[in-house]
Amino acid sequence: MPVIISRQALRRLPLYLQYLKKLRAIGGTHVTATAIAGEMQLNEIQVRKDIASVSSRPGKPMVGFEIAGLIDDMSEFLAYGEEKQAVLVGVGALGSALLGYPGFSEYGMRIVRAFDNDPEKVGHTVHGRRVHHIREMGEVLGGVNAMIGIIAVPAGAAQDACDRLAACGIRAIWNFASAHLTETGDVLIQNEGLASSLAVIVRRLMEAEGAV
Amino acid sequence: MPVIISRQALRRLPLYLQYLKKLRAIGGTHVTATAIAGEMQLNEIQVRKDIASVSSRPGKPMVGFEIAGLIDDMSEFLAYGEEKQAVLVGVGALGSALLGYPGFSEYGMRIVRAFDNDPEKVGHTVHGRRVHHIREMGEVLGGVNAMIGIIAVPAGAAQDACDRLAACGIRAIWNFASAHLTETGDVLIQNEGLASSLAVIVRRLMEAEGAV
Repeated sequence: MPVIISRQALRRLPLYLQYLKKLRAIGGTHVTATAIAGEMQLNEIQVRKDIASVSSRPGKPMVGFEIAGLIDDMSEFLAYGEEKQAVLVGVGALGSALLGYPGFSEYGMRIVRAFDNDPEKVGHTVHGRRVHHIREMGEVLGGVNAMIGIIAVPAGAAQDACDRLAACGIRAIWNFASAHLTETGDVLIQNEGLASSLAVIVRRLMEAEGAV
Repeated sequence: MPVIISRQALRRLPLYLQYLKKLRAIGGTHVTATAIAGEMQLNEIQVRKDIASVSSRPGKPMVGFEIAGLIDDMSEFLAYGEEKQAVLVGVGALGSALLGYPGFSEYGMRIVRAFDNDPEKVGHTVHGRRVHHIREMGEVLGGVNAMIGIIAVPAGAAQDACDRLAACGIRAIWNFASAHLTETGDVLIQNEGLASSLAVIVRRLMEAEGAV
């Protein structure tokens, strides 16, 4: 039976993991839900619920949860140990940064192919990956078992990149372009939306300043 | 009286705006809540509620909302027209990409100063901004009216960067480091968390595949 977990809870799991790994790195062995809740500014009941949805290990009174066990259960739930191959479209400033981002390996993601349509970039190597022309996508992805397509192209080119990736069998799109892509058919879309994050931070700042 | 709007609704506003601007660019003048809901795969009632929380313009039966008016009201609510100065700490691959990102100007954000502690970078110019040493932060920010600090340093250096920014009067932190920062005192923290986004996309993919 699939475990039902909300997207909000799912977004919290990697943050729990970062905190738990920090605790383990400085020698911690156990942690209480109260401490986690305090550190992450969450409600303790929510923390207990999140933990229970991914781990069946019980916490002990006064001592709390075993840190190593929680790390194992959360990492397994998030499939961090399984390699997830991804391909990138758009090797501009942001795309290059994503190609070179060392953090993805920690989550089991590896960008195996990169595409662009700029003749200045095609054929060159960026962070160890050769850049292929976007027209070659079908051929290049033929022998590759990638499920995730990362889009980092200008807004106007995002839908075309999405359509090409979908046609090549990519099942999920992680969209960093500043254009909203709509989910159609079988392809999952996650719009990253720096604009959305910026909106939240600016509004909270205005509220804190009493400007609204 | 401040307008009460949830963070989730706030995150949707820039996406509405992108869609509305796309409609306007191809000659649209009016749009119904039904069409917006369909395009963005949201509940129509939610769309109407979101619109009502930032705009008092009524939609007309059959015709819908005036696109230009909605764009004005949403842009004003999000303060896109007001310049928001930001400073960046960490001019690595991701930091450089953020420095060169042309999209921020659309939202009124401008990165006015950049810092790093790498002697290879300090004193050089990246995307038109001179890189200052992180030790010079107090002095460099003395005459600057920046409210937002963007952190793009390795995980282990994120808390130090945050503390230095807070000490210089920065009021909100946009954290791109893969380390969770905790809100303390007066400084707002927004953890960007690529890991959290990746967790959502991978889990949804696993669910779609019937793997869980």
